[in-house]
Amino acid sequence: MDKLHLDQHISQQFNQELEDIRNRVLAMGGLVEQQVSNGLIALLENDGDLAEQVSRSDHLVNTMEVEIDEECIQVLARRAPTASDLRLIVTVIKAITDLERIGDEAEKLGRFAAELSSSNRTFEYRKELRHLGGLVRSMLQDSLDAFARLDADAALNIAQRDDDVNVEYENLTRLLTTHLVEDPRRVTELLKITWCARALERIGDHSVNICEYVVYLVRGQDIRHTDISSDDLIRNAGADDDSTRGNKDDDSSHT
Amino acid sequence: MDKLHLDQHISQQFNQELEDIRNRVLAMGGLVEQQVSNGLIALLENDGDLAEQVSRSDHLVNTMEVEIDEECIQVLARRAPTASDLRLIVTVIKAITDLERIGDEAEKLGRFAAELSSSNRTFEYRKELRHLGGLVRSMLQDSLDAFARLDADAALNIAQRDDDVNVEYENLTRLLTTHLVEDPRRVTELLKITWCARALERIGDHSVNICEYVVYLVRGQDIRHTDISSDDLIRNAGADDDSTRGNKDDDSSHT
Repeated sequence: MDKLHLDQHISQQFNQELEDIRNRVLAMGGLVEQQVSNGLIALLENDGDLAEQVSRSDHLVNTMEVEIDEECIQVLARRAPTASDLRLIVTVIKAITDLERIGDEAEKLGRFAAELSSSNRTFEYRKELRHLGGLVRSMLQDSLDAFARLDADAALNIAQRDDDVNVEYENLTRLLTTHLVEDPRRVTELLKITWCARALERIGDHSVNICEYVVYLVRGQDIRHTDISSDDLIRNAGADDDSTRGNKDDDSSHT
Repeated sequence: MDKLHLDQHISQQFNQELEDIRNRVLAMGGLVEQQVSNGLIALLENDGDLAEQVSRSDHLVNTMEVEIDEECIQVLARRAPTASDLRLIVTVIKAITDLERIGDEAEKLGRFAAELSSSNRTFEYRKELRHLGGLVRSMLQDSLDAFARLDADAALNIAQRDDDVNVEYENLTRLLTTHLVEDPRRVTELLKITWCARALERIGDHSVNICEYVVYLVRGQDIRHTDISSDDLIRNAGADDDSTRGNKDDDSSHT
């Protein structure tokens, strides 16, 4: 298993700060997961109240993003972390941007769910949206789990599942486009369903980003913009290299 | 004018590294601007070759993103920057993610332009797309200029222009939706035009993000998720506070 074990520092407080940041990211992730989940339920079960609730809960996620960012910057300034500690901080700074944008997509799901539910009609494509939503939710959940366990192998496997999401998304938009041609009076409703599918597909993309950051964190290897299905990448259980270890060469310098 | 003057360090090499990072970001920004510009020209002038070129040039932007990230992490590890130097590095790490995503949107413009041009028909809505594209292009250009000049006042003004972009975008999608109802046989073409408008609107959003980072860099004030049109924000010419200045308290520690 290609997993990272974070350094232990002589400074108990530094350990605590890094642990605190990780826990906050996981709490933010949990909240975002809940939003996506509620957005989907609202959409699939025509639950207007839940939809309204999701579309109004985005500010909690936004506040968490700003607070975690601030904490990361404080740690960079006070602790001058190197090697895997530094990668953890940079990873967190990037990952919370994606979590915040997943929150935005969940908010959109809630908004469209509210609009669709107010039309008092059971719309089609629930089966397809449920299937797409299920794939995306489990990708998000597993990405956060890979981050929690610092598991690069798992992250690579999860990222590859985005291909299935894209296929399902393409199939659904093709169906919707055909339907639009056949029944143009329903264009507004069908376009809303298209935007929901699009929001789910984007959540899959952001989950891939999180997976890529986990690989970077664990292996010190930047795999963005590379072919994630490459066998070399999967096989390469690269060690935690120390290319980011700077002048500060021992952890006892953390006071 | 609320502008930041970056510290000068005793270490000439550190000065040079920070300057180099800023220059690289501006070079990446220039390339992304060019892609957006070419994507728009390809779209508006039915230029299939230029469209193909844009849709294939994304890898250059991707490579720049990975390289700048790497350089930032090296500087964090070796120089342990604090205060405005640290904010510069964090700002760059965030801003290049937005630049890369603007590159993705430009690539989409190119792809749709190529598909629309191959239909050998002059499509409508060029006037609207030209107008929307013009607003967005100048927002992107001015955001990068605010970053180059470290000008927070300008950044705040530019960010507010996103309201106009959103109004134009809403108007155009409303027109397109009405047209879809009237002429459903052209749904594929009209949806492609809708996606182009959406890509332009997203470029506006990413430009706002860049502006927000510039304000953070100059003022040390995080204005994400706040009402950017607030008069308080505009009037508050907050000084470069040193809340991120850590244990390392003088620049001569950079060796």
